[in-house]
Amino acid sequence: MQIEQMETPSVAIDLDILDANLKRTAELAAKAGVKLRPHIKTHKSVWIARKQIEYGATGITTAKLGEAEVMADGGIHDILIAFPLIGANKLKRLAKLIERGVRVTVSVDSMEAARGISDVGHAAGMRIPLYLDVNTGLNRCGLEPGLPSAELALQISALPGVDVNGLMTHAGHSYGCGDAEGARKVAFAEAEALIATQQILRDKGLDVPEISVGSTPTSKFTEQLSGVTEMRPGAYVFGDGSQLYPGFIDETECAMRIYATVVSSPRPGTLIVDAGSKTLTNDVSVHRKGYGYLPDYPEIFVERLSEEHGILAVPNNCSLKIGDVVSIIPNHCCTVVNLRDELAGVRDGKLDHWMKVDARGLIT
Amino acid sequence: MQIEQMETPSVAIDLDILDANLKRTAELAAKAGVKLRPHIKTHKSVWIARKQIEYGATGITTAKLGEAEVMADGGIHDILIAFPLIGANKLKRLAKLIERGVRVTVSVDSMEAARGISDVGHAAGMRIPLYLDVNTGLNRCGLEPGLPSAELALQISALPGVDVNGLMTHAGHSYGCGDAEGARKVAFAEAEALIATQQILRDKGLDVPEISVGSTPTSKFTEQLSGVTEMRPGAYVFGDGSQLYPGFIDETECAMRIYATVVSSPRPGTLIVDAGSKTLTNDVSVHRKGYGYLPDYPEIFVERLSEEHGILAVPNNCSLKIGDVVSIIPNHCCTVVNLRDELAGVRDGKLDHWMKVDARGLIT
Repeated sequence: MQIEQMETPSVAIDLDILDANLKRTAELAAKAGVKLRPHIKTHKSVWIARKQIEYGATGITTAKLGEAEVMADGGIHDILIAFPLIGANKLKRLAKLIERGVRVTVSVDSMEAARGISDVGHAAGMRIPLYLDVNTGLNRCGLEPGLPSAELALQISALPGVDVNGLMTHAGHSYGCGDAEGARKVAFAEAEALIATQQILRDKGLDVPEISVGSTPTSKFTEQLSGVTEMRPGAYVFGDGSQLYPGFIDETECAMRIYATVVSSPRPGTLIVDAGSKTLTNDVSVHRKGYGYLPDYPEIFVERLSEEHGILAVPNNCSLKIGDVVSIIPNHCCTVVNLRDELAGVRDGKLDHWMKVDARGLIT
Repeated sequence: MQIEQMETPSVAIDLDILDANLKRTAELAAKAGVKLRPHIKTHKSVWIARKQIEYGATGITTAKLGEAEVMADGGIHDILIAFPLIGANKLKRLAKLIERGVRVTVSVDSMEAARGISDVGHAAGMRIPLYLDVNTGLNRCGLEPGLPSAELALQISALPGVDVNGLMTHAGHSYGCGDAEGARKVAFAEAEALIATQQILRDKGLDVPEISVGSTPTSKFTEQLSGVTEMRPGAYVFGDGSQLYPGFIDETECAMRIYATVVSSPRPGTLIVDAGSKTLTNDVSVHRKGYGYLPDYPEIFVERLSEEHGILAVPNNCSLKIGDVVSIIPNHCCTVVNLRDELAGVRDGKLDHWMKVDARGLIT
């Protein structure tokens, strides 16, 4: 079936572009001499995670225990859960996951989080590897680099059931950089912050071997950095507007397209398509107004979204009419996937197979 | 189990408040002498739809064919699909739904949409009831009221397989009104616009009996309107910030709470909870900055969301610490539900049962 003949709104993944993206980033990591531990929150698919491993990834990153559990079911056995696991329920599930023989690393940024995990490790007669999450500018989790993070790492290293195995950061703020040069600067700054912290710890007698950096925009500069041992890009698999608009990638690297049907032409200058926020999401980009980009109609602006309606601002001479199908590159691929049970895997514009979003809805 | 002991992030519905909301709006419709046809996109639950019918609704409204199909499976047999059905795939599914004996009404705002449905009706030897969607200020679907809409209705009425049975509008812009008085004005304006159009049609010999108005904020004023025959509120079942902030409802009418755990305390003035945009959604309100409201900590501001992180701006003397569970009223209940397979039905703060979100993910 031609992709345009499928029920809309649909989310299509070009399998050749996906494959090229997976290979390119695996080669990037190999060339840089660093481990690749991609973040699977983007695709939530066991099949794609296995492909990533096949192409050289040493393990994966997840945001949630539920994602880790599903990936372990799918045969992935080296998993970083890049989120603090807090509370008795989460720690019980962590213990079970470890019992199954999965090598789980957990990121922490507090003694409270570390203590809970240490209790799990101690009860299991092992030391669970931890990454200390360090803030390098996203201002989300993580203490400041340098002394604050080093002091916390030293405190944690005294706990019996954990091992401070690495320092990590996620430079999500690189998406807000003006261009690739801006992303390069962020890549250098995040690496320097981690390595300086590592050096403080080394001086105090604690060797923390792994330096793990995240984010797709910065990943391209890993080869230029020294001291980094691992990278964790996620969104590179599909590409999206937030990578396209600032020029981090070009359209040939965008594997994801939303197909939507023009369903209404209520007044001059406006068309309505059947993809709203329940398909495109309300995620915005600092680099382009609106909620997506139509590669075949770059002059069209996705002005507003209701839940099921996309309101397009179109030039008065626009040739589109009710019933036409348009393709849209969404601003943010990760949140689009999260709304779907299945993605349409396409090749040469035809449906090849449906790809299950295995970890969709596993929110805890 | 106490709701705070459940895995977070969770979405809890207070069943007593839900029940009171369902009854109050059913009584409102009865008192106003209008039919109630609630929009089920808010809850996507067969169980709640059946309750709505039990309390007096004459039918339901859906946004999608997929939602209508699931509701028909659940025994609901009078359904308005308030979205233009465009394309061969959609029309085939419409034909099947009608074959099953479901009374389906479809909203249209173009000859193209009406022709497709007329073909389905003609082939089935019947006239499918249509509502003409009229724009009363939301500027989404719908021609202008008065002559533009009347002329389209007359053209459509000449088609063999449809019956223009009503005029409808959705005053979603009422959420942007400053207060209840603003919503009252919108309610009057939308009713007047439809009734003026109905009068033009009557003068030209076309009787269009149903005048159907939407939106929760305007629904409270239906009793004051004359000529309206039906109302289609949706979000009233759960209540949310977009209703609470401008004073359309009070906290006792908010059935939905997000429970989230404090997982990080990285710097003074900031706490991180485990509910991000994949739980709270990026939907915003014009009446309050941020991404939700903490009724127990009104001074806390949900400043930013990542996919799995909620970044809270807290006063320096805030007593919350890592491991504490907070409850959050989200800005928009409909999109929160759309991210969940199940909602926790709670009574007196304890889990009563899990409620399936039957129509989640039925996006076409």
